[in-house]
Amino acid sequence: MANTHNVNWEQLKAYCQKLVETQGVPADEAAIVADCLVDADLCGVESHGVSRMSIYMKRLATKVVNAKYEMKVDSEYPASIRWNGCNSMGMVTGTRAIQRCIEKAREAGCCFIAVNNSNHFGMASYYAKQAAAEGMFVICGTNAPPNIAPTGSPKAYVGTNPWCMAAPAEGEPVLLDMAPSVVAMGKVILAAKLGKSIPEGWAITADGRPTTDPNEGMKGTVCPIGGPKGYGLSLFMDIMCGILSGAQFGPHLNNMWNDFENPQDVGHMFLCVDVSKFVPLDEFKARIAQMKEEIKALPKAPGVSEIFLPGEIEQRRRAERKANGIELSDVVYEELRGLGEQYGVEFTL
Amino acid sequence: MANTHNVNWEQLKAYCQKLVETQGVPADEAAIVADCLVDADLCGVESHGVSRMSIYMKRLATKVVNAKYEMKVDSEYPASIRWNGCNSMGMVTGTRAIQRCIEKAREAGCCFIAVNNSNHFGMASYYAKQAAAEGMFVICGTNAPPNIAPTGSPKAYVGTNPWCMAAPAEGEPVLLDMAPSVVAMGKVILAAKLGKSIPEGWAITADGRPTTDPNEGMKGTVCPIGGPKGYGLSLFMDIMCGILSGAQFGPHLNNMWNDFENPQDVGHMFLCVDVSKFVPLDEFKARIAQMKEEIKALPKAPGVSEIFLPGEIEQRRRAERKANGIELSDVVYEELRGLGEQYGVEFTL
Repeated sequence: MANTHNVNWEQLKAYCQKLVETQGVPADEAAIVADCLVDADLCGVESHGVSRMSIYMKRLATKVVNAKYEMKVDSEYPASIRWNGCNSMGMVTGTRAIQRCIEKAREAGCCFIAVNNSNHFGMASYYAKQAAAEGMFVICGTNAPPNIAPTGSPKAYVGTNPWCMAAPAEGEPVLLDMAPSVVAMGKVILAAKLGKSIPEGWAITADGRPTTDPNEGMKGTVCPIGGPKGYGLSLFMDIMCGILSGAQFGPHLNNMWNDFENPQDVGHMFLCVDVSKFVPLDEFKARIAQMKEEIKALPKAPGVSEIFLPGEIEQRRRAERKANGIELSDVVYEELRGLGEQYGVEFTL
Repeated sequence: MANTHNVNWEQLKAYCQKLVETQGVPADEAAIVADCLVDADLCGVESHGVSRMSIYMKRLATKVVNAKYEMKVDSEYPASIRWNGCNSMGMVTGTRAIQRCIEKAREAGCCFIAVNNSNHFGMASYYAKQAAAEGMFVICGTNAPPNIAPTGSPKAYVGTNPWCMAAPAEGEPVLLDMAPSVVAMGKVILAAKLGKSIPEGWAITADGRPTTDPNEGMKGTVCPIGGPKGYGLSLFMDIMCGILSGAQFGPHLNNMWNDFENPQDVGHMFLCVDVSKFVPLDEFKARIAQMKEEIKALPKAPGVSEIFLPGEIEQRRRAERKANGIELSDVVYEELRGLGEQYGVEFTL
């Protein structure tokens, strides 16, 4: 039995869309959900890819998430919206919000949207990419349930809230999508599975001591980048997404994985700045190209074969996987097959 | 001879203001420069404090920086300004820009200002603090000459460009002002002076290898937080401040310390989001207070006596130093005395 299954990205997307549609999600909205997940697998961000289908399906099936997209404007000004996500699917809300943010930035120069009452919206770069393609400099992010401890405490209070930003360029944008932790907890879990130790600085124990034992780390929390700096970045993303929007924050966010009664009340933020209101877009892109060329031509450290711009590795991987297929693990592949049986969709992968 | 001299912050400010005025800077603008520098010393950010007076004075005296504040609007929209700093003092430009940013955000919901043709503007938190006091959520920053290497290269390309953000609160704001490097180069230099080794992860050598030898680290560069994450944060701040504004970026910024012929052409960015356009300011502050209380009440790791919010340590230090005086090192104290002699201002400290 193979360890992985090579699947075509468009077939994977079509299959996921059909699954989502079984729960009453309209076709165009189900397409957004499927596109966002498959894009994560294309980029190599498997944690936010189709491995999440089973939890999304369960949340739709239990109706803890609204299948039909709705939104309500809580307040709107020339360059801002407080956006009520009405507990719709996060990807649909995210896509609608970034599109509106782009439109308003084109009028006003910039626009800031804070969303409340939303759900997990997948990979933040999915939205940033759309805005950059429209000539926007963009910052976006979301809050998430706690897994980072404030410096000095062993107890998680803020999530690994991503900071994502993108700038238009010729071809693919420059794009940074980062969690403010040194590593994802998944890497600590993997080390434990493999019986390996972890470097100091990856995780702390449940009582707040540094550790190289992944089993101890799993009971604790992952470390923020730069200590108080990463904790601060995470906290400020939570302030924008949770407090400014009027959503929940910190430990008050409801859990996606085991709470099927209470909406998550996640918050997101989107900032678009219309580049052409500052400098001609072509000039901006030409200077980005110059920056990129100069960085790629820098001397390399021993053992380094290439220097990358933020986002470049993922973009290259996307192109490669579009051409050659996505390798799905047995576990995820069988999960997807199982979802087909459960929700009455023919398994076509 | 004492190693430090205790000076009163208001007297220090008045003395620095007089020095700056000798170069034709109007009193109200000289007061801003002095206030910004002394505020850094009050907070314990000595690297951006009055130790910089000699270089600022030299730049004014050589007229590589304009003594008279000017600005030109390159372009303006309801929620954006491309602001030409006309090579004025960075602190005056920064203060005028953040004030205008606040005003415009109050109209439009948010405002983004990118400044070109500016100079070193001191501590970014000086501007963030002003906006938070006016009920704004704020992000601001600046670019700076290179001292961080893109991941994989030993060669610096981007500066330790600060990311600063603040949120209004009862009393002092929550305030993060961080360089995207693990430590300041100053700490590596200090370790070398003291003959101590440095932890791996602080700096790399001139050919890009990790090192624990501070002498080797001094010839190389400091490491960004979280590797490619810190490099990415720095790069995106440069894209906003350098490329979006139309200022210089990366290695093209001119050096403040040894180039007295070419203006630096530094860029800054300011984003203000008017909290009251999203939620009532009181409600926002009440939820920030709740967050703060919850964080401060978290369990503590071994050896930790208190858990802090971003900015809290600096704010406490400011209050303490306002009450008890600032301890200036011999070197800085004598430098200030020397400036008085050089520019004909009576030394009153």
